[in-house]
Parts: sequence; C-alpha cells; structure tokens
Amino acid sequence: MSNTFGQLFRVTTFGESHGGGVGVVIDGCPPNIELSEARIQRELDRRRPGQSKIATQRKEEDRCEILSGIFGGKTLGTPIAILVRNKDARPEDYMEIAEKFRPSHADFTYEAKYGIRNWQGGGRASARETIGRVAAGAVAKKILSVLYAEFEIVAYVTQIHEVVAKINRSTVKGKEIEKNIVRCPDTVAAKKMVSLIEEIRNKGDSVGGVIECVVRGIPPGLGEPVFDKLDADLAKAMLSIPATKGFEIGSGFAATRMRGSQHNDPFEIRGGRIRAATNNSGGAQGGISNGEEIYFRVAFKPTATIAHEQKTVTSSRKQTQLAARGRHDPCVLPRAVPIVEAMAALVLCDHALRQRAIMIADRGMSSAEQ
Amino acid sequence: MSNTFGQLFRVTTFGESHGGGVGVVIDGCPPNIELSEARIQRELDRRRPGQSKIATQRKEEDRCEILSGIFGGKTLGTPIAILVRNKDARPEDYMEIAEKFRPSHADFTYEAKYGIRNWQGGGRASARETIGRVAAGAVAKKILSVLYAEFEIVAYVTQIHEVVAKINRSTVKGKEIEKNIVRCPDTVAAKKMVSLIEEIRNKGDSVGGVIECVVRGIPPGLGEPVFDKLDADLAKAMLSIPATKGFEIGSGFAATRMRGSQHNDPFEIRGGRIRAATNNSGGAQGGISNGEEIYFRVAFKPTATIAHEQKTVTSSRKQTQLAARGRHDPCVLPRAVPIVEAMAALVLCDHALRQRAIMIADRGMSSAEQ
Amino acid sequence: MSNTFGQLFRVTTFGESHGGGVGVVIDGCPPNIELSEARIQRELDRRRPGQSKIATQRKEEDRCEILSGIFGGKTLGTPIAILVRNKDARPEDYMEIAEKFRPSHADFTYEAKYGIRNWQGGGRASARETIGRVAAGAVAKKILSVLYAEFEIVAYVTQIHEVVAKINRSTVKGKEIEKNIVRCPDTVAAKKMVSLIEEIRNKGDSVGGVIECVVRGIPPGLGEPVFDKLDADLAKAMLSIPATKGFEIGSGFAATRMRGSQHNDPFEIRGGRIRAATNNSGGAQGGISNGEEIYFRVAFKPTATIAHEQKTVTSSRKQTQLAARGRHDPCVLPRAVPIVEAMAALVLCDHALRQRAIMIADRGMSSAEQ
Amino acid sequence: MSNTFGQLFRVTTFGESHGGGVGVVIDGCPPNIELSEARIQRELDRRRPGQSKIATQRKEEDRCEILSGIFGGKTLGTPIAILVRNKDARPEDYMEIAEKFRPSHADFTYEAKYGIRNWQGGGRASARETIGRVAAGAVAKKILSVLYAEFEIVAYVTQIHEVVAKINRSTVKGKEIEKNIVRCPDTVAAKKMVSLIEEIRNKGDSVGGVIECVVRGIPPGLGEPVFDKLDADLAKAMLSIPATKGFEIGSGFAATRMRGSQHNDPFEIRGGRIRAATNNSGGAQGGISNGEEIYFRVAFKPTATIAHEQKTVTSSRKQTQLAARGRHDPCVLPRAVPIVEAMAALVLCDHALRQRAIMIADRGMSSAEQ
Repeated sequence: MSNTFGQLFRVTTFGESHGGGVGVVIDGCPPNIELSEARIQRELDRRRPGQSKIATQRKEEDRCEILSGIFGGKTLGTPIAILVRNKDARPEDYMEIAEKFRPSHADFTYEAKYGIRNWQGGGRASARETIGRVAAGAVAKKILSVLYAEFEIVAYVTQIHEVVAKINRSTVKGKEIEKNIVRCPDTVAAKKMVSLIEEIRNKGDSVGGVIECVVRGIPPGLGEPVFDKLDADLAKAMLSIPATKGFEIGSGFAATRMRGSQHNDPFEIRGGRIRAATNNSGGAQGGISNGEEIYFRVAFKPTATIAHEQKTVTSSRKQTQLAARGRHDPCVLPRAVPIVEAMAALVLCDHALRQRAIMIADRGMSSAEQ
Repeated sequence: MSNTFGQLFRVTTFGESHGGGVGVVIDGCPPNIELSEARIQRELDRRRPGQSKIATQRKEEDRCEILSGIFGGKTLGTPIAILVRNKDARPEDYMEIAEKFRPSHADFTYEAKYGIRNWQGGGRASARETIGRVAAGAVAKKILSVLYAEFEIVAYVTQIHEVVAKINRSTVKGKEIEKNIVRCPDTVAAKKMVSLIEEIRNKGDSVGGVIECVVRGIPPGLGEPVFDKLDADLAKAMLSIPATKGFEIGSGFAATRMRGSQHNDPFEIRGGRIRAATNNSGGAQGGISNGEEIYFRVAFKPTATIAHEQKTVTSSRKQTQLAARGRHDPCVLPRAVPIVEAMAALVLCDHALRQRAIMIADRGMSSAEQ
Repeated sequence: MSNTFGQLFRVTTFGESHGGGVGVVIDGCPPNIELSEARIQRELDRRRPGQSKIATQRKEEDRCEILSGIFGGKTLGTPIAILVRNKDARPEDYMEIAEKFRPSHADFTYEAKYGIRNWQGGGRASARETIGRVAAGAVAKKILSVLYAEFEIVAYVTQIHEVVAKINRSTVKGKEIEKNIVRCPDTVAAKKMVSLIEEIRNKGDSVGGVIECVVRGIPPGLGEPVFDKLDADLAKAMLSIPATKGFEIGSGFAATRMRGSQHNDPFEIRGGRIRAATNNSGGAQGGISNGEEIYFRVAFKPTATIAHEQKTVTSSRKQTQLAARGRHDPCVLPRAVPIVEAMAALVLCDHALRQRAIMIADRGMSSAEQ
Repeated sequence: MSNTFGQLFRVTTFGESHGGGVGVVIDGCPPNIELSEARIQRELDRRRPGQSKIATQRKEEDRCEILSGIFGGKTLGTPIAILVRNKDARPEDYMEIAEKFRPSHADFTYEAKYGIRNWQGGGRASARETIGRVAAGAVAKKILSVLYAEFEIVAYVTQIHEVVAKINRSTVKGKEIEKNIVRCPDTVAAKKMVSLIEEIRNKGDSVGGVIECVVRGIPPGLGEPVFDKLDADLAKAMLSIPATKGFEIGSGFAATRMRGSQHNDPFEIRGGRIRAATNNSGGAQGGISNGEEIYFRVAFKPTATIAHEQKTVTSSRKQTQLAARGRHDPCVLPRAVPIVEAMAALVLCDHALRQRAIMIADRGMSSAEQ
C-alpha cells in the first residue's frame, strides 16, 4: 500500500523508469467535474525533462492518456487511470549500474529490501514516478478550485545553494513563477541561480536548495486531529518527494529561537473574520487550517547523480569506482516546483473531502434526542 | 481515521484532557511478546507532569491499566487497550477560555472544524493525548528489541532557544539522557538550559528548541517506496506531535548549501558489510533504511500558554485580552523526548512488520514457473 | 487492523471475555450529535445475557461508560471510547478447556494462529466482543436518523430450526419485535420457537435459525462500486458475527431458480419517484441503494456449546472427551437480533458519510473549465 | 477507495466497458516471484466473451499488457499494472439506454449516486471490470502456490436453474472443470445445463445458478478476528461480483435446520494432525482457517439483460419500454467461475501475507523481559 496516498482522494502511482510506462489511478474523485487531458498535460509539461537549458537534456514528451473515469469531458466518480508511456530505452547505458550501487541513490536499499531491482535507470525510485503525482495533482487542484473560489497554490524556488531570493510570500502569483526557467520570482536572484547551475553543471557537480509553497483560499477547518494533522500530512507528502531532506511550516526552525510572547499568534477581527495576526503558525493550529495562508518550505539535497568519479561497491561487495554518464539535472529544484504543488494539492483535496463527510449537522444545530 | 496511526501495527488514541480518561488501542501487535504494565508505566513516567522543577507542577500520576490483549504476561495478538484515568478536573478554571480563543492554541480551529469543543483544558488537542502514544511506543520498542538484537533508540534535547548542546550522536546512550531534568546529554549545556527555562518561567514567558533522535540496529530494507518512505513516515509522525514546526533527516536543511560531490554518501565495505561513508542520508536512501544510524531533528515552538496578557477574540467575535492562569510547562522539550522516541518506534515497528509480510521468497530464489 | 470496521465511520473493538473489560473506539463520528449513555445502554440491554428464560442465565449487567468524545450531551467529532467492565471471573471454571479444544469453537484456530490464547472463556472469540459493536451501532443508528427522516432498521427472527415464521416484511415495526423473548413478530411462530428452544436446552442440545433485517428510509445512492458494494459490505458485516454461516440479499438463493423475465425489477413511477416494482434486488443494484427497502437474511448455526459429551483433542494432541458445563444459550438468535441491526447500521452509516464526501458538485452542474 | 481490495495484497481496478481500457494495479506483491503475461492471459481466456456457444458472441480478445512491476520475468515488489484495451465501441448501439434505465441493472443507481454515468455499455458496472480481478487473481494464485505446496483452488458450476449437479467436492480437480463449456464436472448434469441455457437463450430469457468453490492446502491460522474473518472477507469478495445474491460457507443455510449435536465438528487426530471430523465449518472456525478444505457457495441471479420487452422509465421520469439488443450471456455462471476463483485467491493471498507479518516470535518462545 506504499504506493497509495490519501484517505478519500486516493492516488496510486505505478511504473518504473523503464518498462511499459508510468501512471496513476485516482480513486475517490467526485463526479461531474470538468476535466481534460490538456489540463493535466499542462502540469506535466512543467515537470518534464528537456524543458530548459538548466534541466536534463533528455527528450521525453511525457504525453498523458486518460484511460478511464472521464465521460463527455467530466469525471464519472469512478477511477481515473492516466498512463504515460516510457520511451524506448537503451538498457546498454545502464549495464554498469546493474553491478554498481550509485552513491546516495536507492540502488543498494532496493536490493536490500527486495533482493531484486530494475537497474535500468532508477527503476521505481526514478523521478519519473512523480509523473503520476503531478497528473493527480492537476485533478486535485481542479477540485479545490471548484470547492473554494479563492483557492490558489504557488510554489517557487527560494534558495539555490547559497543564493537566497527575496520574495513577498503574500503577493507572489503563479504566472511570475513561470517567467524564468529556475522558477524563482525574484528576477535578480533567478539570474544568479541560473548562472550558478550552469557553472556547477560544467564542473560535473550538482546543487540543492529550498522550495517554498504558499496556499491561499483554504477555509478554517481542514485537517484532522491527532495524527492526520494538516502539517503532518504535508510533511509526509513533501518528504515522500525524491531528494528532500527537510520540511518546516510557518516559523519553522526559526521558532526554536523565539520566545512565546514573540511567537504567539494573537487573534483579531479583520474584515469581519477572525484572523491570526502574525501567521507564524503557517496556516494551521492544532493541525487544522485557521483560514490564513498555508506556507511551508522543503529542503532538497544536491542531485545524487554527478559526473565526478566516486567510490562505491558492487553487488558482489567489491570496492570500485563510478562516474555518471549521460544527461542529468545538475539541480532538481526547477522541475520539482510542480511536484511540490501537486503533493500539497493532494493533501488539501483529501482533507477537503474528509471535512465534507463529517459536516452533517448544522453548526450549533440541536438534533432532537430520539 | 485521523486518530489511527500505522498500517500493520495500528495505534488508535482516544480521550480529551477532561472526561473519563485517555488511552490507546493497539491493533496488530504480534502474539507471545512479554509485556507488563510496569514497562509501559516506566515510559509514561518520563512524560508525566510534575516530574521536575522545570516541568508543569500539575500533579498527575498517569497510572495505566491494560484492559485487554495480555494473558499470563504475554501479548495475545488481540487488541491491547490501555487506559489512563483523568483526575478530577476543576472546570471553573476554564470558564474564561470557554469564551476566549487562546492564541496559538487549537481552540479556534476546533470550533471552526466541529462547531463544538470541549473547552475544559485543551480537549482533544491537549498534550494528554500523547499518553496513548507513549504507551503504544513502549510496546513498539519492545517488539523492535525482540526483532533486532542491536536495536536502540535515543532522543535528547540538543537546543533550547539559543543554547546549543555538543553531543556525539553516535555514542550517546539512553541512560545519559535521563541524568538531568532537561534530557540533554551535554551536562554543561544542560545546566544553562535549566537556568534559562527557570528564568523564562519567572518572566511568564516560554521557549522552544530542537530534539534530535538517533536509532541504531535497524537493518537495511525497512521503508516503502514511494509514499510511505521511512523519512516521510517519520516526518509525519513528528509533525503530528503538538508544538512541532519542522523536521529534518540526516544533513537536513544544511544539505541545501552543499554540492553533490560533498554531500554524496560513497559506499564502502566495512566490517564485512556494505556501509555508507558519511551517512549524510541519515539512515535512509530512496525512503528505505540502509543499515546506518537513522537520525533526525524536530523543531518545537515555544509553549503557546504564557502568563503575559495577550490580545485575542471571543467566540462571539469580540476583541478581548487573555492571560494564562495556573501551571504550565515553560518549555515542552524535556517531556517531549519520550514522545519523539515513541512516535519513531511506532513508525519503525510498523515498517518492520510490513517488511516481514513481503519476504516470502528467499533472496535470489527461483520459484519454478507453474 | 482486523479489529477495525468501516472507512469513515470507523469502529475498533477491543477486549476478551475475561480481563479488564470490552469496548469500542468510534473514530469519525460527526460532531454536534446528541448522544447519551442511556441510548447506548438501551441497545446493550437487548443483547445482554440473562434477559429471558431462553437466554443464558449468566448475570452480566454490561453497564457502559463513555470515556471520551462527548461533551455537554453532544458528540465532539473526536473518538468516542466506550467501556464495559468484565465481571469477576471464575477461571477455575475453565481449567478443562485450557487443555481441550472445544469442537466448533475457535480454541484450536486461535492457538494455531497465535501460539497463545486466553482460555478463560472464549477470549477474543467470545460473543462478549459484540458489546462494542452494539454500542457503536447505537451511535450509527442515531446518525442515520439525523440524516434520513424516514430511517428505520428492524431485524427479527424468521426461523428457528424447522419453525418458520410468517412476517410481512414491509410493515413490521421495531416494537413488535420486542414483544416476545424470541424476537419474532409472528406471535404464533414465536410461541413454538420458545417451546422448541426450551425443549432443546433440556436435552443439552442447541439450535440455529435465520434472522431477517429490513432497513427503510435509505435514499438512492449509498454504496460504492466495485468492491465496497452495499451488499458486499453487508455480507462481510454479517459473516463477521459469531456463528453465522450464510447471507442472502433480496431474492437471494431463490433467485437461482428463477428466469430473468421473472426476476427482473421493472422500473415505474410511483408517488412521483422512480421505483423498482418487485424489489427482488433487495434494495441495491450494482451495489448501490435504489431507494427501496434494503432487506437480507443471515443464517446462524446451532450454538457450538452443548452439554453432550463430545469427542475432541488436547493441545498436546491427545484424543479426549469434553462436555460443556455452566450456563450457555441454547439458541443465539434472540440475542443476535440487536447485533445484526448494529452491524447493518455501521455499514449504512459509513456509506452515508462516504457519499457526502463526494457530493461536491450540484447534480448536473457545469463547473467552468479553468 | 471503493475500487481497492485487500490490506497487504492490494488490488485496485479501473476502467469502464467503453473508453481507453480496463485494468488493475496490484500493490504489495512480494518480490522475486516468477510471473509472465502468459500466466495471466490463461486466466483471462477463461473469462473472455465468445469462448463458447453458450457465452455471449461478442468477440473480445482481451489481451493483457503488463505495464510495470516485472523485470526479467520476476516481480520487483513494486506495483504491477496490467492493462487490457477496450475495442472500438459502437456507441450508437447504446443510444437508447442513454435515456432508459435497464431493469435490474445499475443504470439508475449510478445516475442517482453520481448524477452522471457512462451509458455506453454498463460503464463501470460492466462485467468487463472483472478483467482486472481475474488478472490479479492469477498473481495471487501464483503466490499462494509458492507459499503452500499443496495449494489448489477449484470453482465449478453446481446448479443452473433447477439442474443440480452431483459432485464430490473433495476429489474434484481443476482440469475436470475445463472439460466442458458450462464448467460443471458432473458430465451428465453439464449436458442438461448446456441444453437448458441454449433453450433459454432462444426464448430471449436468462437463468442463474450456484457456483461452489473449494480451496485445498491452506494451513491453519489464516484469517483475522474479529471483522476480517476469513468467511467474512470471502463473503464480501463474492457479493462484490456482479449478479450475486447470496453466499454460504460450509453447512451454510442448511445449518439452520440442524441441532448442535449434529452440526458440531469434533476434533480428532488423523495423519498426525489435528483434524475436524465433519468440516461442517467449511474450513474456518472463529474466522480463522482450521487446515481443512475451505468451501463455499455463491448464488447468481439470472442475467438482467434479456430480449423480452420490459417496462421501465427514462431519466426524465417517463414510463417506457425496453428490449435488449445485441449479444449477451443468457447465463453468466460459466464465465463467472474464474472470477470466483480469482476473488477467493485475492482474499487468501492477502491473509497469507497478513499472517506472516505477525509471526515474529517462535511459537512458545520466551523473549526475555528487558
């Protein structure tokens, strides 16, 4: 069941980097929602390889096909299966890693877990798996926008290695993100990031960074005590993305150096609504949305695949050397932006449906004891 | 289902801070494991209020009673229900917060979600809920120690506000943690932390900090691709603990400022086993344990309950003021240490059982095609 | 997880026949529903031993205590834990079956599964476990009656051994059921059944029979394709009750001897609604409720515990003899009636909440493609 | 989640009768199991239309493609996605039922549930959905045969309308079943059944009947108390198959007319093992397998699609008439035999993996209290 995510809006991804294809089955999608392949393809295009000079130059079109669950342009309420075919692979490219475990990759751990692995590319641990997530995320975004008129989700690169962007979290818009290839709305920082990534690639090395995500228009009340807190589910969603090493919401790790009197979020009446003054909470209190912006940051390590010669071992436990060949991303963050958005949308859509299920009584209603 | 955690080793907690009691039902515990109330009580005593001068001075004994699932000192394989009674409450202490939403607490969000809340104490959002987790964690630890001879789990305070401890993660032992009341094995830092907490309490304020946790003796192979990665499940577990704001595993956020050539974990043969040289990964690669130490850090915000007068609103949307009365923790970290351990043990125990379920074929076996 | 039932309205029972107690945790109950211990106790009283001369004469009061989830007489939306204490047991009564496997009981299979069992009474396989189900069923009934004004659920004994009752399924009312101790609304048949049960008990033997259940007021649309069909979930619910051997819905096994032209359910407009003319379907088509009465029958075997001397074996694999001592039910059906109702209510309540979660779009709405 | 079945061996089917295709994703399949498309195709061929003169004459090849989860002829432990393309449909054939609800079909209930349906064929309620189940069942059978050397599963038609076969349940073999097109091992009865089905088809009518299934070689200990009893999960599995109306295990409904002294299953030592003398239990006691043959029967109603003119209503609530056109099965049972086997295999495979997960301690082990 490790390949399924969500309780009511349930997403099951399948597929290895090589083989017939990758995809997703979405179970629990509400009926009568307009949905097209074009909408899904738009998100997949933000994720696909070869989209810019700083991404891997592999040419993969990643065209999606909806196999089921849609009729006359609308969702049926039945499972939506989406398939993206793998392109012809050149398995000979991978003969070396059939034997050698790539450092900081999942080759060794898959072998340890299963006693077998598809060594053609990353197999199931390949970032191609996230195609299914991004496709499902497109559906989740659509549902959230039907449910909440003000719904908006925007992720962006806020740091690459030592280059830190200055971004006004509360005003940044989705179209600003797409204006440059590194997906950072601070254009000055973005230029530095692009240069840095190119320089690092030329050195055969790689870098990591931080993606921030902000969600607007979520009403108070989403998220479940005590284990399925909104923040807990977001943390899991983000740490399930390849190459992530950390997550923080609201004030995050900085909160550890504040005093309660500084950190606390006084309530006030603003615009006729109950509002949190500082939103240090990051949009959730006690694991439940408070109606403020939900925002969080995700740490990505530098890409594990580098051109440098590295020390490693073979599956028969011999010491050896390995240097990556071929085309890879010197920095995964620009392509990870739509994945972060997709995973956040999956969490929120699931919680939106969960909340609907329990709202059977009017607020304050008095159902006569029978 | 938000009150259940785990897939095979399933833990359901129940109870509000006021009412009959709090507790847990553990479903999926393997049979024939020796288990006593004393073992569980030992862990609960590490969590209970009033244990030291820097914890809340509320007197709660938190005696546990095992209601089911044990026979002749051994687990039956049936649900283990554990109950801790609540003590007589003084609801009059809470009359004020029946009306006023405490800043940075869950009062407002519970009200928004459910249209009703138990305002006597924190209700379901109270830290008393973690009693069930700690009790279940004691059972999980026991199972892990039956499964893995080298199993060891140690959490400790590594930072309180600006005071940062120096700790050798790979040698620190559980008994060192319990030597001082702040649960920090760096005795010099521990003293400073205790002084700081006392000073802060006297000011009616509060502080947060960081807890680190290290787990030893977990073999390679635990954790599931792709959503139920070990790191993802640990992240969720930690962010489900009250007052947490962040999680990082291995190199964590620091990885974002490293290059791939620095960060990568070369494999080597050491002691006849395949080992990761740096363990920047933090014990999991591709979401699956690699046989190294698993270590991670959790950020806790300063306690929301402070004695300062704070701005807030009433449930009828009037602006007002609120100052906490009574006894509370000026810093939750010392008492959160056993909770962090418990949640980590729940994750690992669940994954240990999940791994056993799929290991039906010998490694490299050739089952004749029938 | 075998001790949890339901997807959204989730019920986890715990407890052995001997030990601290038995009970249930209900997770996913909507908030703001009026609920009292009295309401639950009323259902438990229909199930408890000693209630009539044809039930076991053991004296168990089975008083329930609500431990959590209720505040001011209303549900909080948090887990509702309900506990019923076990009475002081006389373990010496059970010394014989510590060694000997009772025929047609679960002693042997529990031992085979777990390598350990609580031999004091039936342990976890005891019918006492159903206390938790009946308590949860009372909550489910309450929710269904809040949701559906016409909701009504009535189960009754329709056959004991060869005595078959004549009952008008569509007019029978709950209060008729409770008019006699065998819970059969055909008063003539009921008398014969009571005589038969007494006669059988005097012979130290036991009998089985059939319980029918009818549910009214469920709107069209509950039940999920394809695995969680309403009929499938009802079948599982019923076969999970101790001593059941069969389930049929609507026309049931009789359908196998009909032709399609006889069996089919033509649609017609009646009372302004689309109605199924014959309701041979039993209220569900394609696994989804069609707005007609839902009705089904459950087969119960004769009680396994009999006073006759029986052949059996010991746990050390020696052939031996065993005769039950003490007080037992010569026929479980009268006390099983509330259990059948409870399990049906759990299924329907769960599906009612599931249906609400997906109803986000108005019927026929046209959400603008964004 | 209604489209997912199983806890550890999890099967999610997708697809409507018309659209891109139907299929299944299997999550939780153990690694290193030999598996080929040919093995799966063999089972699909037993289910496909047009296989004999008494089945529907639609020509569908139903060729399966494994999209993922297999490498070098072995399972990877990752999700196995299997796709069967739909053939070019002629939607004009279905224009009439776009408007009219077919009696005893799911047209009306899907419309009521979702407010939308794919009226081209049965949509999601079509028997084509069972292709995914049969494919997954082939994998489950393979795993069971790796786990249990004596494993064997055989289903067969035991009754069509009034024609009842005489079959020795304990000796019947799979190859006998496949010897005739009605899949009934009693050759005399089989001939009568074939004649009857042809006669009924010529009259434009349909018939139902009973399928029995027997499973051998399952050790004691599979099945979980209390809700996930083996019999309960089998009941759900069977009632989830289209056109089923009833389920009984072991003595089934006949048990209701027996006395306890007749029905009970005395234990005896036979062949060095503890055996149940009568196996009236049908292979499970207390919901857990007892090492005997598991056997049960499933009632199928007559096919709902008949050539007779029938009364029905339109979606705009007008009374109308409808007569089926085209080719359909006058009796679904021969093609349902592999579906019954598949669903039984899914249940048993899931419980086999679940049992492995909890068997961590040796039987009778004494783990030192730590």
